[in-house]
Amino acid sequence: MTIAADWIAVDWGTSNMRAWALSADNKVLAHGESPKGMGQLSPSEFEPALLEVVEKWLDSERVTPVMACGMVGARQGWIEAEYAITPTPPVAARPTRAPVTDRRIAVFILPGVSQSAPPDVMRGEETQIAGYIASQGDNAVLCLPGTHSKWVDIADGRIARFRTAMTGEVFALLAEKSVLRHSVGTSEWSDDAFAAGVSAGLEAPDILTRLFSIRAASLLEGASPQVSRARLSGLLIGAELAGTSDFWRGNAVALVGASQLSALYQTALALAGVSAHRYDAQDMTLAGLCAARSTLEDTQ
Amino acid sequence: MTIAADWIAVDWGTSNMRAWALSADNKVLAHGESPKGMGQLSPSEFEPALLEVVEKWLDSERVTPVMACGMVGARQGWIEAEYAITPTPPVAARPTRAPVTDRRIAVFILPGVSQSAPPDVMRGEETQIAGYIASQGDNAVLCLPGTHSKWVDIADGRIARFRTAMTGEVFALLAEKSVLRHSVGTSEWSDDAFAAGVSAGLEAPDILTRLFSIRAASLLEGASPQVSRARLSGLLIGAELAGTSDFWRGNAVALVGASQLSALYQTALALAGVSAHRYDAQDMTLAGLCAARSTLEDTQ
Repeated sequence: MTIAADWIAVDWGTSNMRAWALSADNKVLAHGESPKGMGQLSPSEFEPALLEVVEKWLDSERVTPVMACGMVGARQGWIEAEYAITPTPPVAARPTRAPVTDRRIAVFILPGVSQSAPPDVMRGEETQIAGYIASQGDNAVLCLPGTHSKWVDIADGRIARFRTAMTGEVFALLAEKSVLRHSVGTSEWSDDAFAAGVSAGLEAPDILTRLFSIRAASLLEGASPQVSRARLSGLLIGAELAGTSDFWRGNAVALVGASQLSALYQTALALAGVSAHRYDAQDMTLAGLCAARSTLEDTQ
Repeated sequence: MTIAADWIAVDWGTSNMRAWALSADNKVLAHGESPKGMGQLSPSEFEPALLEVVEKWLDSERVTPVMACGMVGARQGWIEAEYAITPTPPVAARPTRAPVTDRRIAVFILPGVSQSAPPDVMRGEETQIAGYIASQGDNAVLCLPGTHSKWVDIADGRIARFRTAMTGEVFALLAEKSVLRHSVGTSEWSDDAFAAGVSAGLEAPDILTRLFSIRAASLLEGASPQVSRARLSGLLIGAELAGTSDFWRGNAVALVGASQLSALYQTALALAGVSAHRYDAQDMTLAGLCAARSTLEDTQ
């Protein structure tokens, strides 16, 4: 059976790509994905990588629009999509047309968002934020936990300011590449150790002088791999919260991320006395691409 | 020409080994080293690795004592040398005899030092501290910068307490393995960027939320690789100082480390209004092994 997509939504990150075939009223008709992330492609390789996944959804009689977000628009990506500068609606500027040879597609890449002072950038998250605004409302404090967590103040449908925390990447480096790898397990968990870590990190975010106690506790006290892992995670998330309290203190937080990670942030925020609601990252990405698609139609 | 050592001093770390042939009055007669660090040896491989370097200094008619310190005494090393527990003189307990088959050597491994609350450990640094006490005096605040920096309160010739900061390891992971590697150079330097980083880290040690600005500044402002590298180094050392101010505030600091790294810490401490004197790490290690050797003689 052939699916003819009215348009195609694409979330193209550093390490993989996801695509959806959509009807004119934004119903998902089909879904596909590829491990060919931006990180492994040169500019000329993006079009074939896209066609591998979406060609079966194309109608040879018309041009199908493709709305793409994420690192595909980075300087090292398919083509650079300039940043919109805060304060800005998350998807404001006209998307950038990517060069293609296949006449059945027109590829639009959404711009990222940058902030001048302090300098910061996002690419991909702005689309999730657009999805949140389209589906949930114009004013919120958002946290998008991940490799590079983003904290975002949304006011009247615009990104007022944001801050990136390298928590996920630092966790992975410490757990897998540092001396702590000898102590930190790869599975299982301790809720108590996580909570204790969050409290310690919140209280004193000078993590450089606190990390090694995880190694020492396993050497001296026989702390288990799962306790060490949960402690490290808690310590880092607690330190991230300490460094972002100007976003969350006195506010409810909307968490947009993968469900397991968002649940950890929800627990950590509860320990800080803050309530948080969770929204699925992929749902928000798709909602944001739909919003961008309708904006594009308005201006065509 | 043959050198007959009265005894042999060995500094055996994770990634390499250094040995000195000494006279009865602790004059250095010869020096050797090997890339065979603890990290790549199984217990039975330590004796041959040692003999490769020191055999030429042995007298077949007598047993030459070998005093060794460092990770050689870790659980994964030649044989575990139990920790002395704070408060303790840095080299207090009797060293542990390592099993050998060659009758020309008797190998003694110095114990590390541990602290119960908060849990912390050192192995190798205690010997440098012993060298500092033997050569400089009984009361001091010491900083031993490195992969795992140690801050140490010395009172009446004893280690009263200490704290480990994983600054050097975190710097290397971020500069080489994280997204910051795209921005951080491997050579050159900016004194101004280092100073600005130190101030930022001292003021707000929540580094997780500050690191990414280094990447963003290179993307948005074209910050150079040397500026990014110096900024990262300054930010981390500043955050380390923020987390150890209970050691250095109001005190002079004795820095024991490699000269280039100690100079950075000296600059950072000066920015915090603290004066520091530098001592060569290798000199202090050797002085500490000499002190341990004389203690051993006293008790034999």
